[in-house]
Amino acid sequence: MSHIIALDAMGGDFGPEVTLPAALKALETDAGLELILVGDQAILQPWMERQAPEIRARLRVVHASQIVAMNEPPSQALRSKKDSSMRVAINLVKEGEAQACVSAGNTGALMATSKFVLKTLPGIERPAICTILPTIKGTTRVLDLGANVDSSPEQLFQFAVMGSVLAAEVGGIDRPTVGLINVGEEEIKGNEGVKAAAQLLAASHLNYKGFIEGDGIYSGAVDVVVCDGFVGNVALKSSEGVAKMIAYYLRESFMRNLWTRLLGVLVKPVLRGFKKKMDPRNYNGATLLGLRGIVIKSHGGADCHAFANAIHEAVCEVAHRVPERIGEQLQQFLGVRQTG
Amino acid sequence: MSHIIALDAMGGDFGPEVTLPAALKALETDAGLELILVGDQAILQPWMERQAPEIRARLRVVHASQIVAMNEPPSQALRSKKDSSMRVAINLVKEGEAQACVSAGNTGALMATSKFVLKTLPGIERPAICTILPTIKGTTRVLDLGANVDSSPEQLFQFAVMGSVLAAEVGGIDRPTVGLINVGEEEIKGNEGVKAAAQLLAASHLNYKGFIEGDGIYSGAVDVVVCDGFVGNVALKSSEGVAKMIAYYLRESFMRNLWTRLLGVLVKPVLRGFKKKMDPRNYNGATLLGLRGIVIKSHGGADCHAFANAIHEAVCEVAHRVPERIGEQLQQFLGVRQTG
Repeated sequence: MSHIIALDAMGGDFGPEVTLPAALKALETDAGLELILVGDQAILQPWMERQAPEIRARLRVVHASQIVAMNEPPSQALRSKKDSSMRVAINLVKEGEAQACVSAGNTGALMATSKFVLKTLPGIERPAICTILPTIKGTTRVLDLGANVDSSPEQLFQFAVMGSVLAAEVGGIDRPTVGLINVGEEEIKGNEGVKAAAQLLAASHLNYKGFIEGDGIYSGAVDVVVCDGFVGNVALKSSEGVAKMIAYYLRESFMRNLWTRLLGVLVKPVLRGFKKKMDPRNYNGATLLGLRGIVIKSHGGADCHAFANAIHEAVCEVAHRVPERIGEQLQQFLGVRQTG
Repeated sequence: MSHIIALDAMGGDFGPEVTLPAALKALETDAGLELILVGDQAILQPWMERQAPEIRARLRVVHASQIVAMNEPPSQALRSKKDSSMRVAINLVKEGEAQACVSAGNTGALMATSKFVLKTLPGIERPAICTILPTIKGTTRVLDLGANVDSSPEQLFQFAVMGSVLAAEVGGIDRPTVGLINVGEEEIKGNEGVKAAAQLLAASHLNYKGFIEGDGIYSGAVDVVVCDGFVGNVALKSSEGVAKMIAYYLRESFMRNLWTRLLGVLVKPVLRGFKKKMDPRNYNGATLLGLRGIVIKSHGGADCHAFANAIHEAVCEVAHRVPERIGEQLQQFLGVRQTG
């Protein structure tokens, strides 16, 4: 069965320069994939026509006359960019022409437009952003990463349900474990919202393991890490910051003299696997969970390899019918809570 | 001029096993230092008597019959551990017998006991925990790291004042720059508390540079990073988690075969400076700011080297009269805000 994904070809820091080679890469890797390139026809059409016939047969261009700027306020994008590549790509999902869309554009605008066009699932107030991260034991999924600040206990609970579905369906994990981020592992610690969410989680059918601290994300303590969007965003960005600092000082250490430079050259192949595992490009493609459709957010600065990964994430979520599965689970929990 | 520091000799995961060798190390490094060892006389007195006369002359033992357990609820420690090594050490600061105290004990109990015994400075609701962290450009001070959850805009402002004083006095930085952690750098982003705090900061005499994201901590964007305690705690712990994961996979890369092991041996001296810069032991000694006295919190699992660093931090804060300077600055700001 083929999957049809709409790409916001103009979004991100680099636009078609990255999205088009990434599209090609994705098509070459996945024979069952069809892509709709959304954006400026004058750029996209000639590029498509240059492709080999078997590739071209799985491509389509849909014109969009506008582009959402990376720093544009979401409300403005929603109001005045009705023919943006981002909006048109989301519309294609709404209309059933595409099964998912992928954009490297402005996160706030993507969130607001997706919510406006696709609507949220029953019981979900706002979508959450979820990404996969490496851990000492493998990988974990973390949400929310910044869509929701001051999340209520009910929202934190919803994040747990959505993350569990994703880990079970796309990750293939049986009864994924869930942890709630707190400032300590003891029950008396934390703020009121986290304590109330912990009670909801403990009373649910989720495989809830209790509180974890920030370092629990990377120790692989659980399959799904739940937190407020403000907290999750700062945790993720701090982690990126530390990793960059470590890389900076490591590189500096090998730059000192001829001998250290030589060692650096010898060490490079040893670190190939390490680099691959740590490379954020391999985890690119955050998902906006809780929508009536699949929307994948690529990092704005993604390169071809990273953007192709975001397309791959979209394909996986289509194949596993993630929104439908989340909807079913939510109904079950909401039903249990209403009758319980 | 000599400095007199009280040590909670029984606190932390290892108690006297670490605090006593660290005391010795600190005394050997700093000829102007005198230490009061607080805890079980039966352990401390014989140890002291075994030391060389010139060291022994700068040591004193004060007996305390109880120990606060690492997982003991703060309220219980406050109520029923009135003769704990932690409490007696703080009492010595209150009574003017010591100019500061250092403990590797239970953070919550240390916070609650310090606040109860020493009281906070006028205008401070609760003390904040502040630590120094490495950055690409040098170091930065971050607060709060978990003492205050759901911090009000006024509290965030107080953190900025206290952190600035510390960076200026102990760090010797002229007009230290201050950043407020948010989920984006744009003014429209974040929660209401952060937005209101930003207005207070912008209107103040502090060298406020605006919002920073989590990665700004380690890029060295500012000298003082201000955030709510829940956020700061998760950011710090996540950072530790990432660093541990990176170290784990790096080590694994060099363990693969004989050749990689050999390279690992050759690389070790190259990474000596790197390791030193990244070693959390060199940043040990968080300070509880906002008290009418100096209380330094060492990591519970600190070793001798790390605990000696915490003692050194105490000495620096004594030498620069940090609480008095914070009190003066707060009076100035509170005065400005009341009359302004």
